[in-house]
Amino acid sequence: MNSKPKIVVLGAGYAGMMTTKKLMQQLQPEEADIVLVNKHNYHYQTTWLHEVAAGTINHNQARIMIRDIIDPNRVRLIYDSVVRVNRDDQRVVLENSEIDYDYLVVSLGFETNTFGIKGMDENAFFIQDIDSCQLIREHIEYQFAQYKNSEAKEDHNLTILVGGGGFTGVEFVGELAEKVPQLCKKYDIDPNVPKIINVEASPSILPGFDTDLVAYAKTSLQERGVELREGTKIQACTEEGFIVGEGNELIKAGTVVWTGGVTGNSVLADSGFELTKGKVTVNSDLRAPGEENIFILGDCAWVMNKKEDRPYPPTAQAAMQHATTCANNLKALLHHQPLEQFVFSDKGTVASLGVTDAMGTIFEGTKLYGKPAAAMKKVVDNRYLFLLGGLNLFLKKGKVRPF
Amino acid sequence: MNSKPKIVVLGAGYAGMMTTKKLMQQLQPEEADIVLVNKHNYHYQTTWLHEVAAGTINHNQARIMIRDIIDPNRVRLIYDSVVRVNRDDQRVVLENSEIDYDYLVVSLGFETNTFGIKGMDENAFFIQDIDSCQLIREHIEYQFAQYKNSEAKEDHNLTILVGGGGFTGVEFVGELAEKVPQLCKKYDIDPNVPKIINVEASPSILPGFDTDLVAYAKTSLQERGVELREGTKIQACTEEGFIVGEGNELIKAGTVVWTGGVTGNSVLADSGFELTKGKVTVNSDLRAPGEENIFILGDCAWVMNKKEDRPYPPTAQAAMQHATTCANNLKALLHHQPLEQFVFSDKGTVASLGVTDAMGTIFEGTKLYGKPAAAMKKVVDNRYLFLLGGLNLFLKKGKVRPF
Repeated sequence: MNSKPKIVVLGAGYAGMMTTKKLMQQLQPEEADIVLVNKHNYHYQTTWLHEVAAGTINHNQARIMIRDIIDPNRVRLIYDSVVRVNRDDQRVVLENSEIDYDYLVVSLGFETNTFGIKGMDENAFFIQDIDSCQLIREHIEYQFAQYKNSEAKEDHNLTILVGGGGFTGVEFVGELAEKVPQLCKKYDIDPNVPKIINVEASPSILPGFDTDLVAYAKTSLQERGVELREGTKIQACTEEGFIVGEGNELIKAGTVVWTGGVTGNSVLADSGFELTKGKVTVNSDLRAPGEENIFILGDCAWVMNKKEDRPYPPTAQAAMQHATTCANNLKALLHHQPLEQFVFSDKGTVASLGVTDAMGTIFEGTKLYGKPAAAMKKVVDNRYLFLLGGLNLFLKKGKVRPF
Repeated sequence: MNSKPKIVVLGAGYAGMMTTKKLMQQLQPEEADIVLVNKHNYHYQTTWLHEVAAGTINHNQARIMIRDIIDPNRVRLIYDSVVRVNRDDQRVVLENSEIDYDYLVVSLGFETNTFGIKGMDENAFFIQDIDSCQLIREHIEYQFAQYKNSEAKEDHNLTILVGGGGFTGVEFVGELAEKVPQLCKKYDIDPNVPKIINVEASPSILPGFDTDLVAYAKTSLQERGVELREGTKIQACTEEGFIVGEGNELIKAGTVVWTGGVTGNSVLADSGFELTKGKVTVNSDLRAPGEENIFILGDCAWVMNKKEDRPYPPTAQAAMQHATTCANNLKALLHHQPLEQFVFSDKGTVASLGVTDAMGTIFEGTKLYGKPAAAMKKVVDNRYLFLLGGLNLFLKKGKVRPF
């Protein structure tokens, strides 16, 4: 080899951080240069964003300085936004510079997808990143402060309307059910005034989930005052709220959050990758079709479950497993060895419903509810911190809430 | 006496709380019924409100549940707003009921006075009470969250414009100089973007204060980035900011707060008391002119300094001294003894300029600056808690910041 090959990782989410970390551990410095490009100087926990948005955890708990995990003497860190990948000349255009690569890992995460619902982009908040979630938290609290100081109190200003009853939507309303009573106390407001409403077009929230678990989640949320509007299609989002159903009913709210859909990062489209519903359907070695040296991971990729002939669900758990396969395959490419196939190992899924409640499956189908599930959810959250940054990171950012 | 006389105290500010507390201590239960009427079930520290508004202390630190100080078995507590005093039939009209009195103490505090400046009532926030200060705090933070999430960033949205360079205005910008860098850190915003601007019509901030102390305050504030616009008259307040000076310059700001004036509670006017600049000029025994059984205290009263032929400044210190005289005089009335004359004992004045800086005078003119003054300011704050609620209250709500 004439010069060291350069591996460029785009995005420091679950997939990008773990890939970089593993490359750092598995490759000798003389084997390859590693570059990590990320918009911010921090990594954040996407699966904790709903808690930042509700204000039940501090945003700093949900983010980790990249330098605390990735040694900047080993990995070149570039804090910039990716504009486009030019595959023809193997260059990545950033907002403020350009960088060439020999091997590329595209792990740029998701973007919110409003499915063209009228007015949603303009009028709803998105659980997208740390900044957008701090805005949601502040917007909600500002409604309470304004309500308390207003002469003619309009109760619907304290309604929080959440579009989409999938994983994020349900976890978010679960956190809101914890937070809203605290805000009522802080602003001396009757706790019966604020409403939390979740709107889902499917006949039930959490479509695709085990029916026992869904039933448990519904009861838990409803008992804590969350109103579930299932089988309710959102026709449009206005400044006032959602217009829903056949009768075009208006649900007014002071805060409107859309959690109903995500798609792959728009850099994929801008770079001319062939897309299926906004993501690249990758080969089983996680490379983009037809590309020898480009891996696509995490929420940017559809990874096919060949047994069931449909893609695996795009989760943080899957993204971290992508990283392992990707790092192994990069090493294999450098050593001219055969690449491995990605196989998803389902470790279960636990959805938080608040501080002390959760539900989900672990160990291939064992159902968990209530406090044990909430404890397991924290185990899952903390396990990632161990994997990423060891004991120190767990002690610094871990969830050790009393329950 | 056929029945027990009834003493009604209106308002649980510094004057009303201390009067009630002293009556509770000095009168036997069989001597009089005591009633305390207040809008909220809590007393708050008016002199700490600028800290609640800046967000440098929690609002709960600045308020005290009335029941924690006043024994509800000895004093009847009514939580309601006062509409009007009917002196002819010795009744007080409340929003939800009426109450008669034999002796009345009017200690309803101040209202913000905008001196008819165009647009000020509609567009500026006021440092008025706990609710309004929580709104200011949330409004400021919401500007930071919005700025961070906005595409086309308008820097003036992070400007905080404070009208009035008196005691409250100066203390408020001093706290903001502490808070704004914290917000910049929280929202990853360049600390050079936000501005704190204080506008004062007089040639200097803190008119009437010792010139050495004023010079010290100016340097302290300016070194921490506060812009002082002295000798600058506010012509109008609009949605965008202030229009100032002869040239009608527009100073744009995302947050506009008016601290430039106060007057007595409007209940005084609504009850037909004779007013001088919104307050009642009381006799030296603190009774309203021509009234045998009505005392007017605190920010509702002008108490004349006969030596200098002008009223004493309306401060918390004065209000607490009014309470002592008033309680003594109520006891004297019950016992048909002569009333005492109010004499103000000036214990000095210390203005906070932030967490670790302050300036003021103590012990009849000794000037204090910097950390010793900041320490003394906390002594003053804590002394009141001792007087009101003893060691327990100090431990619960005291200011024991490190400095």
